Amino acid sequence: MIRRLWQEAAKRTKIPLTERDIERTLRALLASQDIWEVIDRSDVPMMALFSILKVLEDEGLLHVDGERLVLTAAGHKLAEDRRLAPARELRCPHCGGRGLDLGQEPLRQLLRRFDELSRGRPEAIQEYDQGYVTPETAVARVAMMWARGDLEGKRLVVLGDDDLVGLAAALTGAPREVLVVDIDPRIIEFTRQAGEREGLPLRAAVHDLREPLPREWLGAFDTFFTDPPETFAGLRAFIERGLLCLAGPGSAGYFGLTHREASLAKWRSLQRHLLELGACITELIDDFNEYVDWGYLEQMRAWGSLPVKVRPKRPWYRSSLYRIELLERPRLANEPLPEEILKDEEAATN
Amino acid sequence: MIRRLWQEAAKRTKIPLTERDIERTLRALLASQDIWEVIDRSDVPMMALFSILKVLEDEGLLHVDGERLVLTAAGHKLAEDRRLAPARELRCPHCGGRGLDLGQEPLRQLLRRFDELSRGRPEAIQEYDQGYVTPETAVARVAMMWARGDLEGKRLVVLGDDDLVGLAAALTGAPREVLVVDIDPRIIEFTRQAGEREGLPLRAAVHDLREPLPREWLGAFDTFFTDPPETFAGLRAFIERGLLCLAGPGSAGYFGLTHREASLAKWRSLQRHLLELGACITELIDDFNEYVDWGYLEQMRAWGSLPVKVRPKRPWYRSSLYRIELLERPRLANEPLPEEILKDEEAATN
Repeated sequence: MIRRLWQEAAKRTKIPLTERDIERTLRALLASQDIWEVIDRSDVPMMALFSILKVLEDEGLLHVDGERLVLTAAGHKLAEDRRLAPARELRCPHCGGRGLDLGQEPLRQLLRRFDELSRGRPEAIQEYDQGYVTPETAVARVAMMWARGDLEGKRLVVLGDDDLVGLAAALTGAPREVLVVDIDPRIIEFTRQAGEREGLPLRAAVHDLREPLPREWLGAFDTFFTDPPETFAGLRAFIERGLLCLAGPGSAGYFGLTHREASLAKWRSLQRHLLELGACITELIDDFNEYVDWGYLEQMRAWGSLPVKVRPKRPWYRSSLYRIELLERPRLANEPLPEEILKDEEAATN
Repeated sequence: MIRRLWQEAAKRTKIPLTERDIERTLRALLASQDIWEVIDRSDVPMMALFSILKVLEDEGLLHVDGERLVLTAAGHKLAEDRRLAPARELRCPHCGGRGLDLGQEPLRQLLRRFDELSRGRPEAIQEYDQGYVTPETAVARVAMMWARGDLEGKRLVVLGDDDLVGLAAALTGAPREVLVVDIDPRIIEFTRQAGEREGLPLRAAVHDLREPLPREWLGAFDTFFTDPPETFAGLRAFIERGLLCLAGPGSAGYFGLTHREASLAKWRSLQRHLLELGACITELIDDFNEYVDWGYLEQMRAWGSLPVKVRPKRPWYRSSLYRIELLERPRLANEPLPEEILKDEEAATN
């Protein structure tokens, strides 16, 4: 039965799926009737999840009752036959599953200062695929780099920074230098002003990452951080540019990647690509990044296919955090990249 | 200077290193004077770390003072010039950095029962490269599989199980079936007896993983767990056998891997191999597994090169936990593997 559902869903989407994605969907539906919770818990790419939900509905396994997604008796029976249980979280309540303690100094104070300084920040806009993380997430990213020795005395470049990670990192006083690069002049202006006001070693430059990098950035950093658009072209534009900025073996990179807009097939392609380029994956933490809801929810691509048109009540867009470390100097050209980096089959927010 | 130290260390070991490993060593030495803490914090392969420590000593940067590793004034100056800070942990005190909450039911009770049942367990012996994890680690592994949907209603195989993970998993009542495979009849007997006494769906079989698997295990499981020896042959023997046991796309595998006995170069080779075989890395959690000290510490290979011959005061042998998921059926032969799977350049405990 699961196999048949999978075959049916596979006909309706070009996103690569396995039978496991049907299971994940059912487990999420056993745990919640709220569409956003189901998106969050299932970890199936949104645009594929909607196809699966449609198949379940057509097969009489799921019933959309007002704002609720309700498994029918047949749906419950299927889950029972497969011995599927509601998706559990078991997440640590203290660290939110990130494994890092933000309750200790100097992180507590960093969170407080960052929270103050980021007030009045530019709001997320769809044109640049923006959508920023919670202040806790920004500080947790900095804590992670700090703990791994990627911050203290190091040169950090942040590629695309509506999250203001560069500002949070500079506030620690640890890095030798921080460069923030973004296409959006509002972000650059905000970052620059905050840095100047606080007297931080923080530079900020407007740059479209589809364009080659200025020569002086090449090989000039020890660490990069980026939260890329998740088309393959977007991932390359941001992560490969990050790699071009690194000094060489021993340098580290961090980036976020979701299950919302990237299938495991895409994950695997990216992983293979990074390993071939000379990197090793050293850590990969699930649900590390939690995003604040953006204003253009109803304008995003996924809204049209959303089976229930309600706004989310809780954060639902999360992503994993990767840490990679270079073992070889990657062979990469500093070339122009394709114009279109925000749209593919799996993209949901643009 | 760091470059020169790296070049010097590279001459004395065949283990691949980057300059970053010199930095990691210095950061660890800034944080602690205890050799076991330095091993733990540096995350440099032990046998390579000892070469680096020797170079630092020869260059007048490190002084062995009784049981303490003391950076000299020149050592401190070097660290300062590079703006290296003491290695920080920032680890969550509640979950020990694993991101999972063991404080909630039914995990609390599982830990209690597992702790009771594992008393009288066979002690670790060097012949089979044993060294078991703390009860908290065993239960955390089970919690992880549970949360990811790899336990409930699933068939689990544990390949090599002096950690008694199979017993802990069966105690949850969640899996449809658990098979424990080990070369050591003591482990199998202990597991079998505990399973029978508690009436668990737990089978146990003596098997040498260098030998082909019995046909009935091939493709018969949804999840595997293994904590392999870390030579490349050992990793293959355990992880590839695990993959052979999996049903196909959507099945998941878990394994531990250290920085104590495996360089990042070896990590990268293994990652590439797994991706080529059709797996995707979905999670990779640092310092997830914590081991109880084994009885044969003075007999292990690393003891001879240990700069200070003291016994550790705290757990120091930790490893990362990988979760992988199959996207394609791996093409693997069920063939005999090489005799020698416990020794290579990087091996330290055998």
